[in-house]
Amino acid sequence: MGSIAIMCSGGDSSGMNPAIKKFVEYALDKNLTPYFIFDGLEGLIDGDIRKADYKDVTGIIHLGGTMIRTSRSKRFYEFSNREIAYRNLQKNSIDKLIVLGGDGSFKAMDIFSKEFNISFIGIPSTIDNNINGTDYCLGVDTALNVIRTALDEIRDTALSFKRAFVVETMGADCGYLALISALTSGAEICIIPEIRYDLEALQKKISEEMKEGRTNILAVVAEGTNDTDKIKEWIERDLKLEVRELILGHIQRGGSPSVYDRLMAFEFISYAIDRLMQDSVNEIIVYRDAKFEFLEVNEVVKDRHRINDKLLDLVVRLSK
Amino acid sequence: MGSIAIMCSGGDSSGMNPAIKKFVEYALDKNLTPYFIFDGLEGLIDGDIRKADYKDVTGIIHLGGTMIRTSRSKRFYEFSNREIAYRNLQKNSIDKLIVLGGDGSFKAMDIFSKEFNISFIGIPSTIDNNINGTDYCLGVDTALNVIRTALDEIRDTALSFKRAFVVETMGADCGYLALISALTSGAEICIIPEIRYDLEALQKKISEEMKEGRTNILAVVAEGTNDTDKIKEWIERDLKLEVRELILGHIQRGGSPSVYDRLMAFEFISYAIDRLMQDSVNEIIVYRDAKFEFLEVNEVVKDRHRINDKLLDLVVRLSK
Amino acid sequence: MGSIAIMCSGGDSSGMNPAIKKFVEYALDKNLTPYFIFDGLEGLIDGDIRKADYKDVTGIIHLGGTMIRTSRSKRFYEFSNREIAYRNLQKNSIDKLIVLGGDGSFKAMDIFSKEFNISFIGIPSTIDNNINGTDYCLGVDTALNVIRTALDEIRDTALSFKRAFVVETMGADCGYLALISALTSGAEICIIPEIRYDLEALQKKISEEMKEGRTNILAVVAEGTNDTDKIKEWIERDLKLEVRELILGHIQRGGSPSVYDRLMAFEFISYAIDRLMQDSVNEIIVYRDAKFEFLEVNEVVKDRHRINDKLLDLVVRLSK
Amino acid sequence: MGSIAIMCSGGDSSGMNPAIKKFVEYALDKNLTPYFIFDGLEGLIDGDIRKADYKDVTGIIHLGGTMIRTSRSKRFYEFSNREIAYRNLQKNSIDKLIVLGGDGSFKAMDIFSKEFNISFIGIPSTIDNNINGTDYCLGVDTALNVIRTALDEIRDTALSFKRAFVVETMGADCGYLALISALTSGAEICIIPEIRYDLEALQKKISEEMKEGRTNILAVVAEGTNDTDKIKEWIERDLKLEVRELILGHIQRGGSPSVYDRLMAFEFISYAIDRLMQDSVNEIIVYRDAKFEFLEVNEVVKDRHRINDKLLDLVVRLSK
Repeated sequence: MGSIAIMCSGGDSSGMNPAIKKFVEYALDKNLTPYFIFDGLEGLIDGDIRKADYKDVTGIIHLGGTMIRTSRSKRFYEFSNREIAYRNLQKNSIDKLIVLGGDGSFKAMDIFSKEFNISFIGIPSTIDNNINGTDYCLGVDTALNVIRTALDEIRDTALSFKRAFVVETMGADCGYLALISALTSGAEICIIPEIRYDLEALQKKISEEMKEGRTNILAVVAEGTNDTDKIKEWIERDLKLEVRELILGHIQRGGSPSVYDRLMAFEFISYAIDRLMQDSVNEIIVYRDAKFEFLEVNEVVKDRHRINDKLLDLVVRLSK
Repeated sequence: MGSIAIMCSGGDSSGMNPAIKKFVEYALDKNLTPYFIFDGLEGLIDGDIRKADYKDVTGIIHLGGTMIRTSRSKRFYEFSNREIAYRNLQKNSIDKLIVLGGDGSFKAMDIFSKEFNISFIGIPSTIDNNINGTDYCLGVDTALNVIRTALDEIRDTALSFKRAFVVETMGADCGYLALISALTSGAEICIIPEIRYDLEALQKKISEEMKEGRTNILAVVAEGTNDTDKIKEWIERDLKLEVRELILGHIQRGGSPSVYDRLMAFEFISYAIDRLMQDSVNEIIVYRDAKFEFLEVNEVVKDRHRINDKLLDLVVRLSK
Repeated sequence: MGSIAIMCSGGDSSGMNPAIKKFVEYALDKNLTPYFIFDGLEGLIDGDIRKADYKDVTGIIHLGGTMIRTSRSKRFYEFSNREIAYRNLQKNSIDKLIVLGGDGSFKAMDIFSKEFNISFIGIPSTIDNNINGTDYCLGVDTALNVIRTALDEIRDTALSFKRAFVVETMGADCGYLALISALTSGAEICIIPEIRYDLEALQKKISEEMKEGRTNILAVVAEGTNDTDKIKEWIERDLKLEVRELILGHIQRGGSPSVYDRLMAFEFISYAIDRLMQDSVNEIIVYRDAKFEFLEVNEVVKDRHRINDKLLDLVVRLSK
Repeated sequence: MGSIAIMCSGGDSSGMNPAIKKFVEYALDKNLTPYFIFDGLEGLIDGDIRKADYKDVTGIIHLGGTMIRTSRSKRFYEFSNREIAYRNLQKNSIDKLIVLGGDGSFKAMDIFSKEFNISFIGIPSTIDNNINGTDYCLGVDTALNVIRTALDEIRDTALSFKRAFVVETMGADCGYLALISALTSGAEICIIPEIRYDLEALQKKISEEMKEGRTNILAVVAEGTNDTDKIKEWIERDLKLEVRELILGHIQRGGSPSVYDRLMAFEFISYAIDRLMQDSVNEIIVYRDAKFEFLEVNEVVKDRHRINDKLLDLVVRLSK
């Protein structure tokens, strides 16, 4: 019935391993021969491609990261390398591809799939939740819960002092992680690229709360604002509180996949394989309004993701 | 602008505390006076009602359980006690109520609210996810992640032996927790009330896998089947594997609320308060197809919840 | 420089995997050839023995259970099977053995090692902490922290109700796990085999506390007392509190090894290998008063472990 | 029988809350009146002192940080402020003090206690484990397990890439946290102030491992070396691996106290109170060779803590 391959591209996110497991099981169920492409586009060029079996995916469902590794590839921009990549697929009779990644990877795959007539489905997989056209990207729920655990623990510590904590979350140009984290951990300040903040207004509000007894402040800042240091200095100078700064960093990509991410991994994969069996496509599977749909690559990559207004409204009072 | 009270009724679930926090904050935002009713319907009868303030809900967002406690009440079946309960509300000028609970509590509240013209909204809150008309009940995501952690750890242990684990999950008459847990932890067997299992077929399939090297089995059994012991004995007798049985029990109700449950708590509460401010109602707020809606109590309690067919299909192969 | 093998025997405990990793690395450091014996004494009889390398122990340091599996073996009681086992060791030129296990395994190995002149060191490894002569058995700290997490979460839930929780911990005939868990989770009642409890006295004390406002009770019961149900019924009948019972079971054996268990694993292994390189021995390595020592097998197995009096004193007031 | 007070001073550490709980319970047991001094030496000057009761310490045993808060105080260096502090103690008839803190706090208390004849015991409490004369400081085990969890998750992520992670741990001038974390998480590189590292030698060793297939490196660097960036640049330049840097920061102070820290908290407190009841002292309680002892303040603060040689030996191969 043909061969199908899976690879990861770009940053990793928790949920990739359950997707890989489901990929192998579902492909075998449908009489497809499943293949792994290791190290993303780099491995595709280098021919690091191997047939996969049930045993390869035993005991990985609960692991963060991706067992087939991922990469960012500059070489893939050159046609000659894409030609080599195509021949590597041909050797294994692979004409269907599933790619777990983000915008950049989808654009590259779109070109490649049109050049060589490879059918491909992209599965939005990034903790940044910044892909246009989908409400959800694989790995976001796990990342949010990792951040939550960190913030809950910081709050315990913060309560031990008269002190502020400024915590920087990931998210590239998107404030989603910071926004949800601030809301669900009861932060007093949230600074994200999508909302113009007003330090004067914030200062007035918080100073009053401090007069009434507030001794602690938790500020969540999205890395995309590049304002973590600025917020820290403002709190020290204008609110006169000792500040500790914490860049959460790569911890946010780790963590055993949450139940939600495992389920989403299964759904993304099974819908994607079903689609690839029906038609020759190059599309992205998206999840919106609780439904799975397929979009042209261009529809997805043409724009950046916008956080919905209701969510932004909820957090505005933490920014001004 | 009037007074509004919140109480919990029936079993507790993780997510109640974030809901209570949001209740106080959102009510004050809307110029309503928020009240706590402690110990559920029991406290309503006993008049254990107190005005709430920001300070009461500081530092509770990350706690499992419910700070205002909950109860199951037989006394509330008697009209005389409901009359006392009504007078307790009157004393505090409370004519709007939010109740976090399940079917039983909703039925009781429906009667009460009609008898005394109290406006009430029920928020489905139970880890069993067994309430008709809603895709989601508050606390389910946290419970699932607690179960996941337990199953992941059991799997580590199981791999140390040639051995089977039979794990019983909660869920009352509903197999939802068991189903999702079996899927997302890679269990080999899943026994739920919604699917008639076939031990002969299972035995044949698993025996073959054991011939090819399988040394471990993880079976997830819903408490609603009452078949945990039967499955244990079957594995010992027919699959000839040593079995360990684990009743997960009340651990499933604990755990710091997940990000998803905190968000759902906020949404349920803000929609419920908005609704109570518009109209005199007795309704249940439900979440379906990614939208929040309001249903008549009767529409909710008239029927038991059905797990959707797509999910059931996914797990059928673990039952027969 | 000769060959050395490691195996696990009896119940598994968290900490075995770090020990196995350190075993391979330390043996190779010392120019010994490391071997794994899979499935404990069963695998020793069946000849399931394999040379080990660095790569085998990559990525296992944080896993609970044991990657070389363990077993309980009746066959090993027969001389003919021990003879077969000996020949399996001879084939691989193995004359040094490290066994992670408990009393039963040590006795069996003692006989075997004397019969066939095999040098062996036993490392006390059981979550029960019930081995005579050592203050610590590998896996106890992880088990205690798993129990702690469960009890902390149960407490959150318990506070939601007027309710008692009766939690049964493992520990075979030894109350150590229950004792430490009760102390460090602030339990109100602790029932262990080492202390004769007095329900009448407990009832008097707790009833008074309930009059002053106590609404919750957490009782930790050691499985070795066989009194879990009795305590449950007593609370319901005499303290008139609703009770939830929780048998923690095999969750206690799981969990990623704690830092303490990883360190103890390293120490046990390096001392054991050093000793085996010096001399032909059959001994148990023990940890007491913060020092590692070696005892004759008989000195260890002749008696049951006694919890020290200071610890028992601390918990007496939770038993009577 | 007199009054006794407890306060925290300097950085917080997990284990302070269980110590505070035990302090109240044990003091009441011994017929002493327990007092809290809030906000450390700052609160002592400001007279923020309150009588404590059982109820104050309900539900705190599992919380990180310290419910009575802590501070660093410059004002206490002035005699006039110490005089005010003394009068605050007099007002409450407090002549016995327990201080959870580190070297700096102990020195300040030593002066104060001699000036005003206040009996005081210091309990070493810092995650840095850098106090001379004691093997253990309260909070270290919890901090190590928080770091472990982070490193285990980072390793999962790292395996997804050809990549190095450079992780900076706390510890002030002491490499203890980094050393133990590197050992117990299987790091390839460990850089601490106590060992002169040799990048040339490391490069040679690791380059060879990379030729044989190593794709990942985990380097743990103690903040006290100030070399985190240097190590990062060296890996990028000389090992030609992409590097991610992670400053663990204040997450390390949070986390629910581990079982070990809860037990140590109980022991430190009960020994300290016993001692204060016998005699008028100003001493530090230390734990060494598995025993609790009391040292003159000067003996403790005169020197910096030295990590024992056996531990240093274990980690040397990760530094050169």
